Amino acid sequence: MRSKSFEGMACSIAGALDAIGDRWGMLILHDLMFRLSRYEDLRRSTGVTHATLSDRLKHLEANGLIMRRRYQKKPNRYEYILTPKGRHTVLLAHALVQVGDRWQVAGKKGPPLRFVDRNTGSAVKLALIDADKGIPVKLADVIPVEGPGADDLMRWRITHFQDRDVS
Amino acid sequence: MRSKSFEGMACSIAGALDAIGDRWGMLILHDLMFRLSRYEDLRRSTGVTHATLSDRLKHLEANGLIMRRRYQKKPNRYEYILTPKGRHTVLLAHALVQVGDRWQVAGKKGPPLRFVDRNTGSAVKLALIDADKGIPVKLADVIPVEGPGADDLMRWRITHFQDRDVS
Repeated sequence: MRSKSFEGMACSIAGALDAIGDRWGMLILHDLMFRLSRYEDLRRSTGVTHATLSDRLKHLEANGLIMRRRYQKKPNRYEYILTPKGRHTVLLAHALVQVGDRWQVAGKKGPPLRFVDRNTGSAVKLALIDADKGIPVKLADVIPVEGPGADDLMRWRITHFQDRDVS
Repeated sequence: MRSKSFEGMACSIAGALDAIGDRWGMLILHDLMFRLSRYEDLRRSTGVTHATLSDRLKHLEANGLIMRRRYQKKPNRYEYILTPKGRHTVLLAHALVQVGDRWQVAGKKGPPLRFVDRNTGSAVKLALIDADKGIPVKLADVIPVEGPGADDLMRWRITHFQDRDVS
């Protein structure tokens, strides 16, 4: 059972979560990033039931995040791949991995997965950077400001933040 | 209704999603980042029912992401703040905002929210960087490798990726 739609709420977070659907949707997207693509491989990797997997694949396809591609005829067989829109969720998967690693949710042995630069072998991490200069910005220095699509509720949240921003 | 627990699955993504609970949990965390803290303000911002808000606050508190703090006596009144563990989800919120913005889920007017460096006013964005050098790494150059906590399933996923990695 998926949660009620966020439709109408002027918030990018809500919209992104709505398209992904739920945690199972996110796990499927993550598996597709590993280029797992066949139904049985996705079943094995996520460990979910047929009903859940097939429902979430339909949801992700309806939201334009994945597409079905035939890889065999007679009988027809299909695999699933990320669309360009679906590939935008890569940063999100990295954020989830990084948060989970800091919380040691996968156990005390350390992270199950690391990401490196294929050219240098150096560890790669997610960070906030200055969009022009490409240099890291400290989290405490990052503040929210109104965007062109802000509604009254968003302006209220931002004002609330500014009133309490004493750093 | 929340989804079945991911317990036992050696995957940081699953663990992070499990602690957050669901999309409402994420929206509440996001509101707390704006330093909204009182129950009625969270109600106004998220637009959820009493039952949902109170259930998700309990879930986040039980998972150590938020804490309740008394701000008034007679009658007792409480507010909610992020714990250090909960503050780790800031990157995740940024990733969701960035994905939602690219998808224009909040409408065609543009993003409702922007983030800037308070010192320079420059736009800030999320990116993958070399953990030592602090310089951005192209997404196509980032590859997954086995971490110390990898189990057989994670090794299988990584091998699968390597077999199909032709870039």
